[in-house]
Amino acid sequence: MSEKGSTNPPPPPESVVVLYRHTMLSRCLSEAVGTYFLILTVGCNVMVMSTGGALSIGSMLMCMIFALGSVSGAHFNPAVSLAIYLSGRSNFSIRDLFLYTASQLVGALSAGLCYEVIFLDAFVLKPVGKYNVFMVMAVEVIYSMALCYVVLNVATTRAQAGNHYFGLAIGFTVVSAAIAIGGISNCCLNPAVAIGSLVAALLAKGSKVLGAYSVYFFMPYLGALFGAFAFYLVRRKEGYDPRGIGLFVVKEEANSIAAAPSTVTGGEASPNAASSASPLIQSDNEAN
Amino acid sequence: MSEKGSTNPPPPPESVVVLYRHTMLSRCLSEAVGTYFLILTVGCNVMVMSTGGALSIGSMLMCMIFALGSVSGAHFNPAVSLAIYLSGRSNFSIRDLFLYTASQLVGALSAGLCYEVIFLDAFVLKPVGKYNVFMVMAVEVIYSMALCYVVLNVATTRAQAGNHYFGLAIGFTVVSAAIAIGGISNCCLNPAVAIGSLVAALLAKGSKVLGAYSVYFFMPYLGALFGAFAFYLVRRKEGYDPRGIGLFVVKEEANSIAAAPSTVTGGEASPNAASSASPLIQSDNEAN
Amino acid sequence: MSEKGSTNPPPPPESVVVLYRHTMLSRCLSEAVGTYFLILTVGCNVMVMSTGGALSIGSMLMCMIFALGSVSGAHFNPAVSLAIYLSGRSNFSIRDLFLYTASQLVGALSAGLCYEVIFLDAFVLKPVGKYNVFMVMAVEVIYSMALCYVVLNVATTRAQAGNHYFGLAIGFTVVSAAIAIGGISNCCLNPAVAIGSLVAALLAKGSKVLGAYSVYFFMPYLGALFGAFAFYLVRRKEGYDPRGIGLFVVKEEANSIAAAPSTVTGGEASPNAASSASPLIQSDNEAN
Amino acid sequence: MSEKGSTNPPPPPESVVVLYRHTMLSRCLSEAVGTYFLILTVGCNVMVMSTGGALSIGSMLMCMIFALGSVSGAHFNPAVSLAIYLSGRSNFSIRDLFLYTASQLVGALSAGLCYEVIFLDAFVLKPVGKYNVFMVMAVEVIYSMALCYVVLNVATTRAQAGNHYFGLAIGFTVVSAAIAIGGISNCCLNPAVAIGSLVAALLAKGSKVLGAYSVYFFMPYLGALFGAFAFYLVRRKEGYDPRGIGLFVVKEEANSIAAAPSTVTGGEASPNAASSASPLIQSDNEAN
Repeated sequence: MSEKGSTNPPPPPESVVVLYRHTMLSRCLSEAVGTYFLILTVGCNVMVMSTGGALSIGSMLMCMIFALGSVSGAHFNPAVSLAIYLSGRSNFSIRDLFLYTASQLVGALSAGLCYEVIFLDAFVLKPVGKYNVFMVMAVEVIYSMALCYVVLNVATTRAQAGNHYFGLAIGFTVVSAAIAIGGISNCCLNPAVAIGSLVAALLAKGSKVLGAYSVYFFMPYLGALFGAFAFYLVRRKEGYDPRGIGLFVVKEEANSIAAAPSTVTGGEASPNAASSASPLIQSDNEAN
Repeated sequence: MSEKGSTNPPPPPESVVVLYRHTMLSRCLSEAVGTYFLILTVGCNVMVMSTGGALSIGSMLMCMIFALGSVSGAHFNPAVSLAIYLSGRSNFSIRDLFLYTASQLVGALSAGLCYEVIFLDAFVLKPVGKYNVFMVMAVEVIYSMALCYVVLNVATTRAQAGNHYFGLAIGFTVVSAAIAIGGISNCCLNPAVAIGSLVAALLAKGSKVLGAYSVYFFMPYLGALFGAFAFYLVRRKEGYDPRGIGLFVVKEEANSIAAAPSTVTGGEASPNAASSASPLIQSDNEAN
Repeated sequence: MSEKGSTNPPPPPESVVVLYRHTMLSRCLSEAVGTYFLILTVGCNVMVMSTGGALSIGSMLMCMIFALGSVSGAHFNPAVSLAIYLSGRSNFSIRDLFLYTASQLVGALSAGLCYEVIFLDAFVLKPVGKYNVFMVMAVEVIYSMALCYVVLNVATTRAQAGNHYFGLAIGFTVVSAAIAIGGISNCCLNPAVAIGSLVAALLAKGSKVLGAYSVYFFMPYLGALFGAFAFYLVRRKEGYDPRGIGLFVVKEEANSIAAAPSTVTGGEASPNAASSASPLIQSDNEAN
Repeated sequence: MSEKGSTNPPPPPESVVVLYRHTMLSRCLSEAVGTYFLILTVGCNVMVMSTGGALSIGSMLMCMIFALGSVSGAHFNPAVSLAIYLSGRSNFSIRDLFLYTASQLVGALSAGLCYEVIFLDAFVLKPVGKYNVFMVMAVEVIYSMALCYVVLNVATTRAQAGNHYFGLAIGFTVVSAAIAIGGISNCCLNPAVAIGSLVAALLAKGSKVLGAYSVYFFMPYLGALFGAFAFYLVRRKEGYDPRGIGLFVVKEEANSIAAAPSTVTGGEASPNAASSASPLIQSDNEAN
């Protein structure tokens, strides 16, 4: 509506959106490192029977998400990666899902070995006290759904693009869940935690520990399905925020792009991101 | 003051404010889902007698508010919806109030049934230890007022539009209240929590549990009255932030609107929001 | 440097800064309400001997600061008001200091009476266990200094203007202090808390409780002196953020001011604020 | 791309980035004050055997980081300063590293003396319970790496420039670590904490306490090496955010610079910062 009356329009300031994405190697390293610290913290808290383990584990998740969200999206959980894949974002491909999951498992195995070596012991995920495996399945599915649902909402929607609370919301969902259902199921919610814990427990105690691990591995995936579906029901018509998969937006003055090329290189091309930004660039060209 | 000297003004960049509102179905789904997770977390914490239940419940509220605030405003509490209605915002009608309350009750009933089925047991809200029902009434009214007052201030005022701490402030008001008065009244503050808990308790224990439930249902509404009145005293002359009822602001380059229409459709028209944004649009037209 | 070459410059968008200040009555109401909820939460936690009282009290402070920071600056503590006055901000006069302190004491007395009526009992601030009054003086001064220092830094400096963490930083300074020195001095840090607690204790237990109250009343003021001095040493050359005293900045499109006058009225004139914003307005006039 | 068609472009608004840095004296004072409060809080919590010491210590770190991050970058830890130096930022020189470390040690010694004088006693850092010194070395290195890694990511990367969660992420990394490994090693992670604690313990208990202090002093430095290396692997190609070393960005209208000179003086010149901002200034000059 503004083209008609302005014969000599200036270039709109701050009109070029630069989407930057780290290389896949950096992103996989990020997923492995974050998952490693998360699961090592799980291990230390359980092995020393700390008071406040839920706060410790959720806080480490929060801090690693704040640290690495702009690198890889900071999933640190194969079920979360699946939920993001299922949410239909074309920027997160099946190949990305596979590589992210593999990186998370590498981090999980490293963490499991690490705390097994430090403590020469490990813990076993299993129903707590009087609760049975069906109760464990119920709460693991429900709270995995809550976790994936919160991630999809705070980290991938356009309405909340650029928010500064994504790590707080995701990390404290785990704090809340670990307090609420830790006394029922030990609160896993993460297939990578299940695998890391399983390997450490196998090393320390042998194959008699396998009992409920299939529940701890598969229920988070089921929760991811439900979370992605609930997200789809409410927000399917909204645009997406690219931050959830490690893209971030750098706003640049139009004039400074040529002078500062070093800031927009160094990563791999992101064709989908470029096309989503194209309306802004096109309107810039049309104005001239 | 700038119109007089500028004969050929350019279109102001970033001058078009797009207010987007989800459909009423999405907003009701959002209220039901958030209330469900909130009350399920209440149930799990009480049933397993967790340590840190106040942090768990308030954190889940915080995370769901961060997740869904941009969809429905994230009330998850009929008393909060009443307070927002009473604050005089024309964008939140009596019909909205009714539909929000109904959705919250659906979520509350689902959560109550869910934890009753998982645990085959339920808890009863009643005065704790030596405290009597008058003490419970006092603290429930006062802290419900605090909760509604914080919500009105952080989520609906123009001075704080776009803040990133609304969920933290609201969630941790509940953390604070649950620690402070949990030992007196069990800290309800929410008619939906009262209803969900009542239905679960009726199923598990029969009609002898009805005792104090009318207090837990009505006191939050009284607190909402006081909270809305205190808010009115201090801030009645200020403009409003539309985020408290699920509107959010998308700032768009003027030139890119025609090229990217997909981002401004998909929801229902919001006439009031449009009229409140009209000064900006009008000034844009006048400039041309 | 940009005037020379541009013969027909457009009005700079977003160039008018509107500073809005609530009326003194609203600001005093805000201080009284926030102090009331803070001290009532102190009373409830101490009276029910809650677990996590430090988190409850600091969280309530945080939430009230987030809620009311844009109204009155959210001091809720006469020592904090003194520190802000001493920091040399011309917008916070000696009259403001007097009215703020009086409002905080009104809130404190209301809260003290309120929890005395609810519990028909009260607590007495005094050294804990083996610790003597000199230790109490030391830790009360040091942590009051920390509190005032954090407030001055996060809420009044230009470098951090518009931050979204001011309430978190201030509230959790109290969480930290209440955990660290609660077992030594009960952690008062606030003359209004001392007065509210004193009146409630006098009503419940008679005049034998006066013991250490002069320490709890005066040490926070001494801490405020030290905090303001430490702040002066580091940051005296910086500009100020007007938010610490209840001013907030509304950025407006230059063209929309005339069309939307309702948003910039309703409060009292703030001449100092206007003069600090004048460079922007002047440059706007020069451009035309 | 916009120079070709615009013969008379206006100066881009908000195009001048002003980087301000406090004097080295202010920055050193800031490091000393923050480290003092951090280590005094460690001392008080350990000496009174508080419940929730991890939250208290991490929260004080968070609050001091929020308070002083814009002055000195808020390291408060010689290992963090080393990690920032190693990350290759030309704005943080070896001289800065030396002065920061010295200031942190001054703050640490003051805090150690202070709590030794208050309590006439001190604590000794050593392995807890059944854990040996090798376990302590492992967890101290790993969690020091996590701390430095989080700092480098949230406080020095361009992708997260201007975020409002840096203090939350860093402070709660310490909360998480102190809960997870407090029961193994007492969780030091900071050579300044080791020195402050050592001097207080020497005064209170004599030279028999020296046992494991070399571990507590050197392991954080080893963690800093690993953290800086992990950071280098993932993010070496990214631009830097100057906030991690106490620079902050003040965005100014181009026209208002001459009229408001007081805001850009008062600190020392920062030649490197100026050169990094030069593309923006150059493009401004070219446009005229």
